[in-house]
Amino acid sequence: MSFLDRVLECARFDPRSYLPFRVDGDTVGFVKPDTARRLCRYPDIFSVTSNEVGLTLPATDPDSRSRAFDAVVEDLRQAGLVNAWRDEPHAVVGNDGRSVLFTIERAAIPVFGFRGWGVHVNGIVRDGADTRMWVGRRSADKQTAPRQLDQLVAGGRVAGHTIGETVIKEADEEAGIPAEVARRAVPVGTITYCTENVDGLRRDLLYVFDLDLPPSFVPINSDGEIEEFYLWTISKIRNIVEETQQFKFNCALVVIDFLIRNGFISAEHPDYAMLCAGLQSDPTRLAGGVPPQ
Amino acid sequence: MSFLDRVLECARFDPRSYLPFRVDGDTVGFVKPDTARRLCRYPDIFSVTSNEVGLTLPATDPDSRSRAFDAVVEDLRQAGLVNAWRDEPHAVVGNDGRSVLFTIERAAIPVFGFRGWGVHVNGIVRDGADTRMWVGRRSADKQTAPRQLDQLVAGGRVAGHTIGETVIKEADEEAGIPAEVARRAVPVGTITYCTENVDGLRRDLLYVFDLDLPPSFVPINSDGEIEEFYLWTISKIRNIVEETQQFKFNCALVVIDFLIRNGFISAEHPDYAMLCAGLQSDPTRLAGGVPPQ
Repeated sequence: MSFLDRVLECARFDPRSYLPFRVDGDTVGFVKPDTARRLCRYPDIFSVTSNEVGLTLPATDPDSRSRAFDAVVEDLRQAGLVNAWRDEPHAVVGNDGRSVLFTIERAAIPVFGFRGWGVHVNGIVRDGADTRMWVGRRSADKQTAPRQLDQLVAGGRVAGHTIGETVIKEADEEAGIPAEVARRAVPVGTITYCTENVDGLRRDLLYVFDLDLPPSFVPINSDGEIEEFYLWTISKIRNIVEETQQFKFNCALVVIDFLIRNGFISAEHPDYAMLCAGLQSDPTRLAGGVPPQ
Repeated sequence: MSFLDRVLECARFDPRSYLPFRVDGDTVGFVKPDTARRLCRYPDIFSVTSNEVGLTLPATDPDSRSRAFDAVVEDLRQAGLVNAWRDEPHAVVGNDGRSVLFTIERAAIPVFGFRGWGVHVNGIVRDGADTRMWVGRRSADKQTAPRQLDQLVAGGRVAGHTIGETVIKEADEEAGIPAEVARRAVPVGTITYCTENVDGLRRDLLYVFDLDLPPSFVPINSDGEIEEFYLWTISKIRNIVEETQQFKFNCALVVIDFLIRNGFISAEHPDYAMLCAGLQSDPTRLAGGVPPQ
């Protein structure tokens, strides 16, 4: 285990194992051939060839498309292809990064390899030169990554909410942070990755925030997603990320990003430049929102 | 002009306009067809086909290769293909990111599209909530980007020097910063880009440092590369980068990176994710050192 191992866990994607999923001429997702074969059952909605899957539903308004996906996703769920049901609508966006093409249940995002969006908030307690950070342990009954370590606050963006609103909502639900405190969270950048795991293809854009908290603050979880919080030194957190897989795959990247931004990893570290580049490693970032050019 | 315009200035690369330059099976550079035709004059050193240029000098030790390049680069200089002579040897590294294949005069790096390395140090003066930053104006007689704005300290890594040594050397020469102060510079990440400009193909990896300085500090330039220093508010520097091209192309990226890391750009900025990804935009990063995987 090393920092680089954790970064490379988030870069497992072989485009030859996927078919591009195209909507209105944009590639917005990537599906496995198995999934593509299943989608052949809906000739009114999809066109499936050996090279790509296209959304060919005659009605092109977002509502009609969303309803069509609802039916398909329910079928995929019954077939066991969609798990970890969240009941949260997620917006799929065109390559202009702005126009919402349709919404889909969040659990189905990795099955189609659509772009996912999340916010991760580092909860930091500074006391002179001593910096500590809040870490949460995910509940044993979480559908993804049970009992793994997580940031103080993290969550997916629900369709229709801004990034700032998502921070405030998740800070309240996950850690009992009042809105007036959550609003002080400082945006410090993004992390992107594209990686295949048990859920399918995770192709996420994480918005990272740092939130300074007073030593007196104690987080309280109200949505049952975190079973315990710890206030640990950076040195301890650093060792856990470097030597173990206790942090959830993407939460480890958020810690590595924090360590880099704050000088806790030397520029002479043999993997330094690879770690930095690895925080923006998604080779598909042109597809499905926020193209780099 | 916008932040995104400045980022996109550093992402001008069409691989179809270049031939890969290969050494020992690794692609370590990219040359224009014009340059490739010139290299045909040295059949003992290079093999040139319509698909690639290879280094085929029989002697494969770094010293022999460096001497061969010295002769070629002198010829290219006389032909007007290499300008802005620095008299600084630069190491060209294999794709393992470590083994030095040979050294070459720094001015010739963009002609071959080899990976360049630099350090950029933000000189920061914090006074409560008020943050200011030192900015240098490059001398009128600089061969590249004369009179453009720059960080307090910036420079290329000379072969054989570590990143830390480069910071200390450049901090002394460019701003008169004593070594014991320069050693406090905090590594905060890297920036990579690949872009075509008047020099050729700039394919650089910048190591970024933040250096907190006391209000009493006054920089003194001793190598003649900076004609004037300014201590400006972040707000003023932000406006200059957003609205003008006064900063040298890559120095603008270092400012944007600082603004993002410190919450001076909102996560709701329409280009936010593109700006963040744009700081690691080199599509060729596998080639010539520090591969991401």
